[in-house]
Amino acid sequence: MAEAHDAVEVIVAKRDGGALSDSQIDWVVDAYTRGAVADEQMSALAMAILLNGMSRHETARWTAAMIASGERMDFSGLSRPTADKHSTGGVGDKITLPLAPLVASYGVAVPQLSGRGLGHTGGTLDKLESIPGWRAALTNDEMLAQLEGIGAVICAAGSGLAPADKKLYALRDVTGTVEAIPLIASSIMSKKIAEGTGSLVLDVKVGSGAFMKDLGQARELARTMVDLGTDAGVHTVALLTEMAVPLGLTAGNALEVRESVEVLSGGGPADVVELTVALAGEMLAATGRDDVDPSEHLASGAAMDVWRRMITAQGGDPDAPLPTARESHVVNAPSSGVLVELDAMAVGLAAWRLGAGRARAGDPVQAGAGVEWHARPGDVVAVDQPLLTLHTDEPDRFERALEALDGGYRIAPVGTPYTPDPLVRDRIS
Amino acid sequence: MAEAHDAVEVIVAKRDGGALSDSQIDWVVDAYTRGAVADEQMSALAMAILLNGMSRHETARWTAAMIASGERMDFSGLSRPTADKHSTGGVGDKITLPLAPLVASYGVAVPQLSGRGLGHTGGTLDKLESIPGWRAALTNDEMLAQLEGIGAVICAAGSGLAPADKKLYALRDVTGTVEAIPLIASSIMSKKIAEGTGSLVLDVKVGSGAFMKDLGQARELARTMVDLGTDAGVHTVALLTEMAVPLGLTAGNALEVRESVEVLSGGGPADVVELTVALAGEMLAATGRDDVDPSEHLASGAAMDVWRRMITAQGGDPDAPLPTARESHVVNAPSSGVLVELDAMAVGLAAWRLGAGRARAGDPVQAGAGVEWHARPGDVVAVDQPLLTLHTDEPDRFERALEALDGGYRIAPVGTPYTPDPLVRDRIS
Repeated sequence: MAEAHDAVEVIVAKRDGGALSDSQIDWVVDAYTRGAVADEQMSALAMAILLNGMSRHETARWTAAMIASGERMDFSGLSRPTADKHSTGGVGDKITLPLAPLVASYGVAVPQLSGRGLGHTGGTLDKLESIPGWRAALTNDEMLAQLEGIGAVICAAGSGLAPADKKLYALRDVTGTVEAIPLIASSIMSKKIAEGTGSLVLDVKVGSGAFMKDLGQARELARTMVDLGTDAGVHTVALLTEMAVPLGLTAGNALEVRESVEVLSGGGPADVVELTVALAGEMLAATGRDDVDPSEHLASGAAMDVWRRMITAQGGDPDAPLPTARESHVVNAPSSGVLVELDAMAVGLAAWRLGAGRARAGDPVQAGAGVEWHARPGDVVAVDQPLLTLHTDEPDRFERALEALDGGYRIAPVGTPYTPDPLVRDRIS
Repeated sequence: MAEAHDAVEVIVAKRDGGALSDSQIDWVVDAYTRGAVADEQMSALAMAILLNGMSRHETARWTAAMIASGERMDFSGLSRPTADKHSTGGVGDKITLPLAPLVASYGVAVPQLSGRGLGHTGGTLDKLESIPGWRAALTNDEMLAQLEGIGAVICAAGSGLAPADKKLYALRDVTGTVEAIPLIASSIMSKKIAEGTGSLVLDVKVGSGAFMKDLGQARELARTMVDLGTDAGVHTVALLTEMAVPLGLTAGNALEVRESVEVLSGGGPADVVELTVALAGEMLAATGRDDVDPSEHLASGAAMDVWRRMITAQGGDPDAPLPTARESHVVNAPSSGVLVELDAMAVGLAAWRLGAGRARAGDPVQAGAGVEWHARPGDVVAVDQPLLTLHTDEPDRFERALEALDGGYRIAPVGTPYTPDPLVRDRIS
């Protein structure tokens, strides 16, 4: 039972630039979860935190208070070590799909408690739900049994983990207080720590298609999360990865499953393979397996075997044909030359408008909708060659999707040099 | 009809340090009044305004939007010029009571739309309601008739003036966002401008018993309000006046009416007389009467005549004995010497705890409760001489009132020099 405080006292302390005491943080998070601190009070506090910041200690205590608002899971009974990965969200980011079975194929338990998409970045569960029969909801017992037996689980996070975060996130979303690094970090890390993983690799995206547009902010977020994980006893590493260009060649639900299966088959786009292997290497190293080259289990089919067992265990048919959209529209290259720009935000927005994403929680998404691009920056294209294919079940969506793509790609004369940014821009541990 | 905006867009603009556009301000104030912007959104915006400020132009537009949320009064049909006064609130501040009839005695209409007290400062209506029969509620027609016939009206502000302010003030009170100078200034000035006065004198208190504790902040608030009034076509002047020491010799409801009647009789404490005359001089000058010495109508009884007519017109009996509290407690001087300190906040808090004030809107107040002090800073006192008398109907209130006074006064050895601060510290026009 936290010591009683007054909401205005806590707000004023942060408003005036002070540090919140442990007791104030414990009280305000608990009281907000119980409804004793009102939404209008918490939103004023969130704005004060956004503008005046929180120290490492305050952020850790805030995270602990959010964890204490709900249940904690326990994977200590498993015979396997656990490793989890979290991405801050990008366009075409399907990495979880090949990554979880790949890491599990080395004897690690990978509990990927995931969410649905909102806005221009897709959700892992939305992607997997395009596989006929696959279900996201598992009981804790089902999850534990699958982790022990197969190693990989991708399922819906239960509402019991950090309920304070769920309530606070919904509030921040409508009050202009999302962009506070201590609150973003504690939101992510409260769920990951409550989930009980032994190690965690964070994929912090940076660039136009990411939440963090510049490297400094992304590095600060990564550092804050690594500190939170470390302080809570979770082995935590972050990679800062490029999100100015979308990952792979597709953005959409079934489209990204198809591309993930290509990677698990030993093929697929080079950047998706590179990032999958980099993240797998970090997760394996964190669990003591720094002696392996993760690309081997992509080539050998061992990762694919785990994928098939994982999908089957959750009711899905890994051999069933994936849904396709009823309508498609091809955008041809307007000129010959080098594709020097393909903007992740433009592609993400187009996929969203085609029906792959949702504007409000609870809205349906189209399994087959999305965008394919037939060239990546650096590739030479010929005039009138297909550059993009747009897919949707509802052709009246093409117009606004094309508007989103207007100015989102650029072709320069042949011979124009193009030097891509490295995919992994920094590592923080 | 304001252009449609999105609440998050408006919040983010101010959060990121930008200026709000006219259209954003018009929309957000109107939408909040209608309930289309939620409390939690407005509180986040209020915190962003508190921390990032608003320009003179933004503050004026915000004030205009609050005025537009309700009705405006019109005194242009009166044969008299109008002058109003507003005090930011102090301890023992009964100045409105002698001031309104004094200024009216020179042919000016003084519409004092007032409020009830909350916290340690008393409310003008609470004070007058200690007069048997007196009523605060008047219709607009009654008010206009009384202004034309008598000149002075002190009555309750109707709920039709700036309803956005009423809603916003209640929100700020519980979200730690009261202390934003643009919001304080627009709250006060929206009501005064909507009320339709031709000129306005602001009494901005500074010191321990005031809302503004330091001169710099008080000056900024005064400057902001004078600018707002001027921009709206109201002749506006502000005096910055001392509130480290309480005004006069009493704090309470009937106690302050008694002292006000003493001033109207040509007597009363020197500081109350000085401030009444100073403010009356400003109000008269603003209406073109800079040729008179307002103290003359205190000495001649002309102000008292208007007082008696004003009280009678609102159902009060100016000759009825004023209520007194059932119990009193005398605090004697603990030593002989010079009283060098009497803290306004300590006295205000004691009067509040004795029952003169209320903790929540709607609570009753005691007519007879309050504090009398028998010496003012600079006076020589003898040991065991009565220093303070506490009054209440409920003797169990004495203990906490005495706690409030503990350390609130100080007696130094005889001969200790004492130089009071000037009562009027600055004038801003």
